[in-house]
Amino acid sequence: MTRAQLVEQIFQKGTYLCVGLDTDPEKIPDHLRSHPDAVFEFNKRIIDATLEHCVAYKINTAFYEAQGLKGWEALERTVRYIPDTHFTIADAKRGDIGNTSTQYAKAFFEALPFNSVTVAPYMGADSVKPFLGYEGKWTILLGLTSNPGARDFELLDCSRSTDILVDGVHTAPKETGKLFEFVFRAAQHWGSEGNLMFVVGATQADAFRQIRALAPNHFFLVPGVGAQGGSLRDISEQALNAECGLLVNASRAIIYASEGEDFAEEAAAIAGQYAFEMKSYLEALK
Amino acid sequence: MTRAQLVEQIFQKGTYLCVGLDTDPEKIPDHLRSHPDAVFEFNKRIIDATLEHCVAYKINTAFYEAQGLKGWEALERTVRYIPDTHFTIADAKRGDIGNTSTQYAKAFFEALPFNSVTVAPYMGADSVKPFLGYEGKWTILLGLTSNPGARDFELLDCSRSTDILVDGVHTAPKETGKLFEFVFRAAQHWGSEGNLMFVVGATQADAFRQIRALAPNHFFLVPGVGAQGGSLRDISEQALNAECGLLVNASRAIIYASEGEDFAEEAAAIAGQYAFEMKSYLEALK
Repeated sequence: MTRAQLVEQIFQKGTYLCVGLDTDPEKIPDHLRSHPDAVFEFNKRIIDATLEHCVAYKINTAFYEAQGLKGWEALERTVRYIPDTHFTIADAKRGDIGNTSTQYAKAFFEALPFNSVTVAPYMGADSVKPFLGYEGKWTILLGLTSNPGARDFELLDCSRSTDILVDGVHTAPKETGKLFEFVFRAAQHWGSEGNLMFVVGATQADAFRQIRALAPNHFFLVPGVGAQGGSLRDISEQALNAECGLLVNASRAIIYASEGEDFAEEAAAIAGQYAFEMKSYLEALK
Repeated sequence: MTRAQLVEQIFQKGTYLCVGLDTDPEKIPDHLRSHPDAVFEFNKRIIDATLEHCVAYKINTAFYEAQGLKGWEALERTVRYIPDTHFTIADAKRGDIGNTSTQYAKAFFEALPFNSVTVAPYMGADSVKPFLGYEGKWTILLGLTSNPGARDFELLDCSRSTDILVDGVHTAPKETGKLFEFVFRAAQHWGSEGNLMFVVGATQADAFRQIRALAPNHFFLVPGVGAQGGSLRDISEQALNAECGLLVNASRAIIYASEGEDFAEEAAAIAGQYAFEMKSYLEALK
């Protein structure tokens, strides 16, 4: 899916909601548990019920891998079930040396039909670039995440002296910033606004305006609304740009809205509330 | 596998070689390709041929995921085939917020019987700790990797001021170091020498003595020997400790030693050369 197609979907439907399919077999409602393919059945019903309220689905690969082969099968059926009007995210946090990242890119972009994959930046350029080599596919790089551990490394003060030639003289200007700022700056040399997004956690709302300044036109994938406590209003006020520029994800708050037989209706109701709020923020942009 | 058991295996067999099963279906010898389960067949023969020369096998998950369901199946058959005398590594570079990392730990330690998994540190403490909660299982955290991209972030100069009370007075001493040094220091508060190792790339041989000083007793998993150009002698001289403390991995140099029907014998020959050299370094420790 191209950027133009994604933006068109967002403004046509008036929503930038992403529904996170972090499907845990232990949390599936009782009446579905005995189903031979319970995880897929659950996802299918959630997708059917929420399609009109969202523009994207994020599949958290960990929950499927934890079920072994059966889980990988449910993941594959799920991504193939999502209509191509909706942007699909493999939330996989992959990243390894170049020849290995090439294999991960194959896994999500060739063996599976995902539009995008989340990637961890620690290992640098050659661990990220293989994902960027696919026409119409997206890399969503971890920037500043929503979890408490974001403080451990992502927010460290960093610096680097770079030898450059200015008017024939070698100088060593110092580049400074938080680690995640280095990631934002470096990655914009590797990818473009048309194939690179950043993960920015909703719980970082205080810093959203500054983070937006680091990448004014890129899309941000924002997890952490709902169960993790981030505010949709704060994020939207600080980080929407002219082409929206946000995909806001809620997982548990939507898919586990009810434990009963009405789980899909309740999921739709919560997704609908988010979408209703988003519509007003999008209209304010005009 | 406990630390004592691993150390016993190393000294009993006189080797700290890890064989990396980065099995790419396109590189499997012709005569095996038509086999219905070619990847597993290839791995099985490599394992049978190299068992006596190594103490560990590292399965690079990317190569299996790239094959979809069939790949995940080959991965599972392979890890179950490795005898429990040998340490098994899921080279998966996982890491996500706490509740998601818990699912990844389940994937590799419960759904699959791996002894260890490689983990990316970017997201901090709560992304790493779930892996450390399993008795007899190991977390192998990325420290300083072997790829060119290691320079982008891992080698940044970092600092953090921490507010602490000294004799009733608030002071803010500054902790400084490269990013990977922060990772080494922080992680040693999360795990112990009995459940935490670090990845240190063989191509970083110049820095090995300093890196060893950061974690004198921890095991290091050292990829990058062979195809990536790292020197076994340099690494061993600088980083062996009294209990060995090293698992040195070679993947392509061993498993693709020959493209012919003799691939397993050739793999054994190369593995045997590494093991022969390692034996002399281990004997020099006594």
